[in-house]
Amino acid sequence: MNWRDTALTPGQRAEALLAEMTLEEKIAQLGSAWPGHDQGGGDVAPMQDVFARGNVPFEQARANGIGHITRVFGTAPVTASEGAARVVALQTEVVEETRLGVPAIVHEECLTGFTTLGATVYPTSLAWAATFDPGLVERMSGAIGEDMRACGVHQGLSPVLDVVRDYRWGRVEETMGEDPYLVGMTASGYVRGLQNAGIIATLKHFAGYSASRAARNHAPVSIGWRELRDVILLPFEMAVREGGARSVMAAYVDLDGLPASAHEPLLTEILRDEWGFEGVVVSDYWSIAFLKTMHGIADSTGQAGARALSAGLDVELPDTLCYGKELIELVRSGEVAESLVDRAALRLLTQKAELGLLDPGWTAEVSEVDLDSARNRAIAREMAEKSVVLLANDGVLPLDARKIAVVGPCADDPLAFLGCYSYPNHVLPHHPGLGMGLEVPSLLESLRAELPDAEITSHAGCPIRDEDRSGFADAVAAARDADVCVAVVGDRAGMFGQGTSGEGCDAADLSLPGVQDELLTELLATSTPVVIVVVSGRPYALGAHAGQAAALVQAFMPGEEGGPALAGILSGRVVPSGKLPVQIPRLAGGSPHTYLHPPLGGNSEGISNLDPTPLFPFGHGISYTRYEYSNLELSAAEIPTDGELSVSVEVANVGERAGEEVVQLYLRDPWAQVARPVRQLTGFARVGLAAGERAKVTFTLHADRTGYTGADLRRIVEPGTIEVFAGPSAGDTPCSASFELTGPARTPAHDRVLTTPVTVTPLTK
Amino acid sequence: MNWRDTALTPGQRAEALLAEMTLEEKIAQLGSAWPGHDQGGGDVAPMQDVFARGNVPFEQARANGIGHITRVFGTAPVTASEGAARVVALQTEVVEETRLGVPAIVHEECLTGFTTLGATVYPTSLAWAATFDPGLVERMSGAIGEDMRACGVHQGLSPVLDVVRDYRWGRVEETMGEDPYLVGMTASGYVRGLQNAGIIATLKHFAGYSASRAARNHAPVSIGWRELRDVILLPFEMAVREGGARSVMAAYVDLDGLPASAHEPLLTEILRDEWGFEGVVVSDYWSIAFLKTMHGIADSTGQAGARALSAGLDVELPDTLCYGKELIELVRSGEVAESLVDRAALRLLTQKAELGLLDPGWTAEVSEVDLDSARNRAIAREMAEKSVVLLANDGVLPLDARKIAVVGPCADDPLAFLGCYSYPNHVLPHHPGLGMGLEVPSLLESLRAELPDAEITSHAGCPIRDEDRSGFADAVAAARDADVCVAVVGDRAGMFGQGTSGEGCDAADLSLPGVQDELLTELLATSTPVVIVVVSGRPYALGAHAGQAAALVQAFMPGEEGGPALAGILSGRVVPSGKLPVQIPRLAGGSPHTYLHPPLGGNSEGISNLDPTPLFPFGHGISYTRYEYSNLELSAAEIPTDGELSVSVEVANVGERAGEEVVQLYLRDPWAQVARPVRQLTGFARVGLAAGERAKVTFTLHADRTGYTGADLRRIVEPGTIEVFAGPSAGDTPCSASFELTGPARTPAHDRVLTTPVTVTPLTK
Repeated sequence: MNWRDTALTPGQRAEALLAEMTLEEKIAQLGSAWPGHDQGGGDVAPMQDVFARGNVPFEQARANGIGHITRVFGTAPVTASEGAARVVALQTEVVEETRLGVPAIVHEECLTGFTTLGATVYPTSLAWAATFDPGLVERMSGAIGEDMRACGVHQGLSPVLDVVRDYRWGRVEETMGEDPYLVGMTASGYVRGLQNAGIIATLKHFAGYSASRAARNHAPVSIGWRELRDVILLPFEMAVREGGARSVMAAYVDLDGLPASAHEPLLTEILRDEWGFEGVVVSDYWSIAFLKTMHGIADSTGQAGARALSAGLDVELPDTLCYGKELIELVRSGEVAESLVDRAALRLLTQKAELGLLDPGWTAEVSEVDLDSARNRAIAREMAEKSVVLLANDGVLPLDARKIAVVGPCADDPLAFLGCYSYPNHVLPHHPGLGMGLEVPSLLESLRAELPDAEITSHAGCPIRDEDRSGFADAVAAARDADVCVAVVGDRAGMFGQGTSGEGCDAADLSLPGVQDELLTELLATSTPVVIVVVSGRPYALGAHAGQAAALVQAFMPGEEGGPALAGILSGRVVPSGKLPVQIPRLAGGSPHTYLHPPLGGNSEGISNLDPTPLFPFGHGISYTRYEYSNLELSAAEIPTDGELSVSVEVANVGERAGEEVVQLYLRDPWAQVARPVRQLTGFARVGLAAGERAKVTFTLHADRTGYTGADLRRIVEPGTIEVFAGPSAGDTPCSASFELTGPARTPAHDRVLTTPVTVTPLTK
Repeated sequence: MNWRDTALTPGQRAEALLAEMTLEEKIAQLGSAWPGHDQGGGDVAPMQDVFARGNVPFEQARANGIGHITRVFGTAPVTASEGAARVVALQTEVVEETRLGVPAIVHEECLTGFTTLGATVYPTSLAWAATFDPGLVERMSGAIGEDMRACGVHQGLSPVLDVVRDYRWGRVEETMGEDPYLVGMTASGYVRGLQNAGIIATLKHFAGYSASRAARNHAPVSIGWRELRDVILLPFEMAVREGGARSVMAAYVDLDGLPASAHEPLLTEILRDEWGFEGVVVSDYWSIAFLKTMHGIADSTGQAGARALSAGLDVELPDTLCYGKELIELVRSGEVAESLVDRAALRLLTQKAELGLLDPGWTAEVSEVDLDSARNRAIAREMAEKSVVLLANDGVLPLDARKIAVVGPCADDPLAFLGCYSYPNHVLPHHPGLGMGLEVPSLLESLRAELPDAEITSHAGCPIRDEDRSGFADAVAAARDADVCVAVVGDRAGMFGQGTSGEGCDAADLSLPGVQDELLTELLATSTPVVIVVVSGRPYALGAHAGQAAALVQAFMPGEEGGPALAGILSGRVVPSGKLPVQIPRLAGGSPHTYLHPPLGGNSEGISNLDPTPLFPFGHGISYTRYEYSNLELSAAEIPTDGELSVSVEVANVGERAGEEVVQLYLRDPWAQVARPVRQLTGFARVGLAAGERAKVTFTLHADRTGYTGADLRRIVEPGTIEVFAGPSAGDTPCSASFELTGPARTPAHDRVLTTPVTVTPLTK
């Protein structure tokens, strides 16, 4: 079988190619090369400075071929056409200068957009989740994928499916919130959009990363199998089985002592045997080397490679440290079975075949592309507008004031809108001469454009992070002089301690960074009504200010169009429709807590003096119009444990403005084998309603959706009562009912139903 | 077989009695009665007010006999002789008014001493651990046991073996710190002392309670089996197998969703099948009812009882809610096997037989006893003196000042010395007329007695918890006027929100309660040297004050003799010798963290901006003399994986005063199957040395002590390098060496070696 035979399927082609390869060539496919990463800033990956020291020239790295080429765009600044030309040159070298001429997979980060100079920066993932609109996310990732494809990229290292367990974690901004179902639905949308554009999506970080001790980056994860399966793994299963994701990234952390990058139960038994995943598992950057240096479960890089490979980790990123010479020796000496190398190489080569990289006559093709096109900006705008959450409003919004003081350190800082994996925050800090590379209006600029007749003054008041109160007086004076004060506070994303949010920027508690809480206290002490706008990557404790602010607005790093979107919300041009994918806590201490808890995880009636009840619940978000819920109906009073029923509820826009409401369906199993959450999201729909309009929202709920990991650690769907609740948030569910599951307890098959389809039917009044 | 036959063994007697019992009588033995608990204050147990509502009169509760009688002494104030008379009366009623006349087991709390009016209040458990002196703990619990025995009590609901995982937890004061080996050794000492005095010890809380989410009391525990076995369960295994404990109490919490009180793997497979425990498992107060009301794993009290009983929980405390009528019906209907009832009843009856309660002609015997005897006070004093930890000292201590300002809210508050389970803090707050019931001098009083020639002024400065700064000025003025300021800050223990430490008094962060940190800041701003004395139930973050204080002293609720003990330390009469059983953190946020972590749980070199490195490490404590370590020697360079070697180190008192030093041996396994701690305590010895004296401390270290729960969740002793470290703290180990384990990997049997014997040999100079 000649691997260049055009009649072969991708799998056959990969097998045929594998058969021609030497051991060196096969193992080279499991590695990667990061050309020019010493030109970066040294902190786009953890311990980059340490690991970069051993880096070899590209010519040497690709001598026997290479699996992946790492971050041509997202390391040091290049224009799209420079980057694309570089990709072509590198691929040409790989094809022409190696024996078999197998091109590399080119991967890049793409969390808030294609991570390259001048490309659209979309809102961060937490904002996607706040839209409760997976279709919109799919459109966004489709646009991202098309731009990447045009530049010769094959794989994007997104999305992040870590379910938030502790708001203090720096990477909360990169997640889709604290509910596994919302994460799974949103991530599946992202995966579909990206992959339909021809880019392989990479689900990360598999698994448990978000549950690290005290939310410290990479710290150990104390977790049992039940929580792991029911909370952490569910969205990955959804994105594999429903989203069709073709790559998964192993996480840095250890779970109960066993590092994810050497975790055979996770990487093989669950991911492949249970879920049927047939794609490629890649390492997080140097996570295999970490098995030796940080976890102490291998005493050489070769042993680290052996442990990862046998667990089911196929490709090492971002360059080859552990899947190299030492591993070859271990295979030669018989310590590592060559079949493990073949297994991983076949997976990668199959993926290359599917991408067309093994087609006869393949050459790298790139095309000119406008990386910040009008289409992109429109999507970024829509996403930003739908993601802003109006938390509270005494009527001060929409603004009709003449004289407005726009204060706070995020008021005139466009970087506050961008996530830590955005190019301007991720790479450009090391290249200060380059500017932003694209147009990102601040909120101050946007408000001036939005409200040309208003008299707008502005003072930062204080920096985002430093303890400098010297600007308080000016900001307070500006507030005093105004009809209304808009106080814009929050985060500046960065990497490894460079920011207040982002990878390696964990919080000791949930007070606002620096002296921003103090600034708010002083502003709120004036008699001027204050609208607090929080632009952040994590929820912050607002309990001290909530009762005193005239309005509270939460934006989760809304991207390059965040300024006009927020200005539109404040002016009333845009009717708010975002919902919280995380709770807003009341107090800065007492972490962690999320809404997904059994009775004893909540306010336990005096058993503890600490009450974790949030200031605003999961799913919360009000608007400039009002909605009423009524007539929750079930299609059946009982269904078998393998049946389904429909749950319908009516929602009416009873206000004066057209708007979109996110209707939420929650579920509770009051008696189970193990402690179950008091409430968990099981379906949702974003419903557009003109003023006065009503609609019926119908959820098709399968019994499988009530399943959980039982006392014996097997998934179970049990007979008994199930309660359902519908409403505008987890804390406000005006409609409820219950039904019975009947018949025998079941262990659902691996094709269990994972989603709750929804239909929306307009109703005549 | 007549159960009253004098020739029977306890087991035979119990079997014979069981055979005569009706189902009602058997199940009655699994229950308990709390006569008069409505006369208490309503918060000696969680949700006492709720559960008390259904309480039945004693006559009805004991109609078919009764297993336990609950807290005759520790509910509402009675004198020792009143309580003893009450015990006799209740037992007489049980014996004379029931068909079989089987007496009850009378249980009482006894954590910091027999929990009754006027009984000695010893230091709290965290202080026992700070002595690193299990023999002293054994003497203390022996004294406690004798006093209880004299009053007709059979079982004490102590000790607490929860390994500290989060300093914010309110019950940290009740624990023996954050190292499983120190907890296991200290607890075994306690168990031996109590049980040798004839009182059954109760190991609690089995298991995982200390690892609750965010340290909120009863909150869910996220934990896997490896951490559970290697950290949480180890001390229980030690106290069962080495200490011979005869009772274990099931905890309130769920572990990964499965409540401990219905946890068959814990209560039966591990506790009995692996460890060979043959005693009785009791519930925590109402923890079986909590299976329904709080965990939602049963829909009736009968079902809750069935789940607990089948898991291996034998006796319900403090009264009978779930092991009652409904459970009888479930047995009658065949839903619950009667053999489960028999299994539990036989265990309890065997224990009654062993106690002599089933001897022919048994009658309740009590005797007069001085509950706060000179012997007791001497033990309490010795324990207090040895438990005080001198953290830092620039030479200001011992005090030689003429004019001393003794300020701070704990300076003149004797209750600050007493734990939450001490009678004065546990019960007496509800009976304000009674006073303390015993003599507890405050530190101010003690210092006045200790330093009669000094001129001592005092102001509280602020309350312990309330945010009242009105006293700051007086305290600061007193400090300014003095040669030295002793600032005494910390906790007041209480129950369920009544205190700043204790059950249900969890902390949101590790700043000192109330405005005490602010008071310290103001005191430290004076030019007067400040000695900070922290009297607390948990470690507090002292990073902000450490560099500025002249000395730092940590006392963990040192009991009724805490005042004279602390005064003796400050005056120099007593040479400090306590060591930290918990770290002292630097920062108030960023919990949890303890010393027992793999590399990534510590300061991970910039991977997270948060650095959990403590201000003072585990095991730290300095003195008024100095010690030098040298000549660490191993008896072998390699041993087989089932062998042992000796590790010796020399310690010399090179200062001017006689003292006692706690020599500590730590172990590290640099390469293992899973991530292992950077350092863990594996042996210790308290060594008394006159000035100039030296001694050789020899540890006999068995290979089993290097074992851990491997990748497949089985315990393993692996070949490879083991590093050992000796020194005065986990952060200061001047002597180290390593040896090789050779031969095959082993899974040690259930009789694996759990301890590291130590011998101390004086050396001539």
